[in-house]
Amino acid sequence: MTLTVGVIGGGQLARMMIPPAVELGIQLRVLAESEDSSARLAATAVGDYRDLDTVLEFARGVDVITFDHEHVPQPVLHALVDAGVAVRPGPDALAIAQDKLLMRERLEAIGAPVPAWAPVESERELTAFLRGSGGRAVVKTARGGYDGKGVRFVRSASEVADWFGALAEDGRGGALLAEELVEFDRELAQLVARRPSGDVVAWPVVETVQQGGVCAEVFAPAPRSAGSTAAADLAVSIATGLDVTGVLAVELFETPRGRLLVNELAMRPHNSGHWTIEGSTTSQFEQHLRAVLDLPLGVADARHPWTVMINVLGGPAEGSLQDRYPVALAAAPDVKVHAYGKDPRPGRKVGHVTAWGDDLDDTVYRGRAMSAHFE
Amino acid sequence: MTLTVGVIGGGQLARMMIPPAVELGIQLRVLAESEDSSARLAATAVGDYRDLDTVLEFARGVDVITFDHEHVPQPVLHALVDAGVAVRPGPDALAIAQDKLLMRERLEAIGAPVPAWAPVESERELTAFLRGSGGRAVVKTARGGYDGKGVRFVRSASEVADWFGALAEDGRGGALLAEELVEFDRELAQLVARRPSGDVVAWPVVETVQQGGVCAEVFAPAPRSAGSTAAADLAVSIATGLDVTGVLAVELFETPRGRLLVNELAMRPHNSGHWTIEGSTTSQFEQHLRAVLDLPLGVADARHPWTVMINVLGGPAEGSLQDRYPVALAAAPDVKVHAYGKDPRPGRKVGHVTAWGDDLDDTVYRGRAMSAHFE
Repeated sequence: MTLTVGVIGGGQLARMMIPPAVELGIQLRVLAESEDSSARLAATAVGDYRDLDTVLEFARGVDVITFDHEHVPQPVLHALVDAGVAVRPGPDALAIAQDKLLMRERLEAIGAPVPAWAPVESERELTAFLRGSGGRAVVKTARGGYDGKGVRFVRSASEVADWFGALAEDGRGGALLAEELVEFDRELAQLVARRPSGDVVAWPVVETVQQGGVCAEVFAPAPRSAGSTAAADLAVSIATGLDVTGVLAVELFETPRGRLLVNELAMRPHNSGHWTIEGSTTSQFEQHLRAVLDLPLGVADARHPWTVMINVLGGPAEGSLQDRYPVALAAAPDVKVHAYGKDPRPGRKVGHVTAWGDDLDDTVYRGRAMSAHFE
Repeated sequence: MTLTVGVIGGGQLARMMIPPAVELGIQLRVLAESEDSSARLAATAVGDYRDLDTVLEFARGVDVITFDHEHVPQPVLHALVDAGVAVRPGPDALAIAQDKLLMRERLEAIGAPVPAWAPVESERELTAFLRGSGGRAVVKTARGGYDGKGVRFVRSASEVADWFGALAEDGRGGALLAEELVEFDRELAQLVARRPSGDVVAWPVVETVQQGGVCAEVFAPAPRSAGSTAAADLAVSIATGLDVTGVLAVELFETPRGRLLVNELAMRPHNSGHWTIEGSTTSQFEQHLRAVLDLPLGVADARHPWTVMINVLGGPAEGSLQDRYPVALAAAPDVKVHAYGKDPRPGRKVGHVTAWGDDLDDTVYRGRAMSAHFE
């Protein structure tokens, strides 16, 4: 038996599947967007993931198709299934990740706690929602948003007039998602992995720090959450309730009263799980491969009291991350650097660093000191 | 700056350089022996490492050439240097690894403790050596031996008559290496990494268990050696004295009186260092890449009290390692499996497993239980 996994999308998530694939002797094939994709080492095809023929051709001979992102169109996903290809997560689960309105509906249907929300099809409806929620709301496009894109904090419906206009032009109708502005103390993320046979494994819940809608830092496990399984229980119920296979990331708000509300879902390895590469016995990338191949899952513990992951956003204004290695690696010989093989660009995720230790403050300090070398 | 490392040889050592190269954004190029080499994912050329044109062509545009094995002929190494290519370790250091007689000479010259030895050019000379060493000796061919090949335990010179015959046929003359049969309690291995600028970093010394001349198990750190820097000091002096760059493995005998004697040297990542992939902050494969690129070295600690590495020798009589995953991964979800992408064959190193924990016996037990699934 040779195990062959096809990954649609050649970003850093596909790239970070390469090391565990090498270790386990799994053949990884990547359908990349361009020749110079982050996962180019494993790319066996370059093409458009929206093109059915391209994707069907790519999928020939793999044991399972999985994803670097959630943007593959539903008709393509269903055609793969019809052709007898194992697709994990499956089209129905991915549909939920692809549409924030559907996600809210389905989460509510399985009893998961979410912020107050409503679909709004017009400025008039949004104005009504605003009246009911203290004059403030978060408005999101149902489709296509990520890393803070497609999200606005509004006090007036006119602030998203352009989005309503675009919906009208689209001709298919549709709605925006309006949500209450949740007062929260902090954001958490809970990652789990689930195999088709049903087994689910949860990593420790982590705290995520966002900057401008983009994940900047992750503290694992989340401080002051030791012993609580609330987030894990919730994520397990979501993975099971929505029939997700592979890694599922559940982004959460923690309210001042300690209540958890689901903010977003991602059905793939996730930025909040990069700490697991060094920090857990089983990394999210290895676990995702095991899960989509329906292999037994690995232990998802924390190997050290604290692990801190810090994104390298943007990267050096001139040159590459590697230009900084002679100084950076000397300054922090105990912090691990991950470079994604992407050209630096303001705000772009071009890498991350991981530190661990017995003291949280010290670990955060060492991680930030290292990441500062790449600014 | 793009960092590009060319590796001559496509075995599992080159393969295990792929994950850290991906993580650090180092471009790895491998000159492999065949299309289906263990390191095929990173192979950019397939050819004969003894062919000068093949190697020179392969070396174009790399920052440094390094090795999966020590068999590249001296004329090829020197031609690379003459062509302006950085070769690490360099030809003079590799010459010592390539010739056991030269190795003994040079080790003695820098004051490293070695077993009593002599070059023997005839059965008559070997008979004389046997008389002086209690009637027993280890005889080794000066070149070409590894994993127990080219090594015999003899009581009579006639037992290596064929080797003397081959030396005579060779026409170049030469000698065999005769060594006293050292009484030792156990075998240790000390790995260090050294950059061209001189910095050297040592991992904890480990105990190695050999079966039929092949490394079977490694316990890290070596039990009862806590706090002793004798092996590390010795290996650092050898790396410096012989001007080795990259990873140097020093295989040692520990005598009943606690004396250390150098058995063998390897100037590359080594089987006794596979535990570092999970067990140390910096794996030997990452460190080797950093060292040959003359980048600052990483911390070479032990992340847990005990780490145990067990080789998978031979592999399943039928099928592949992967065929065993459904049962093996379920039985030991906290033990890591490394498969080398090589077909099973009796005695062949086709993979290894790594376990870690707070108790040595338990860790050994878990490792052996996992490796047994691949027999």
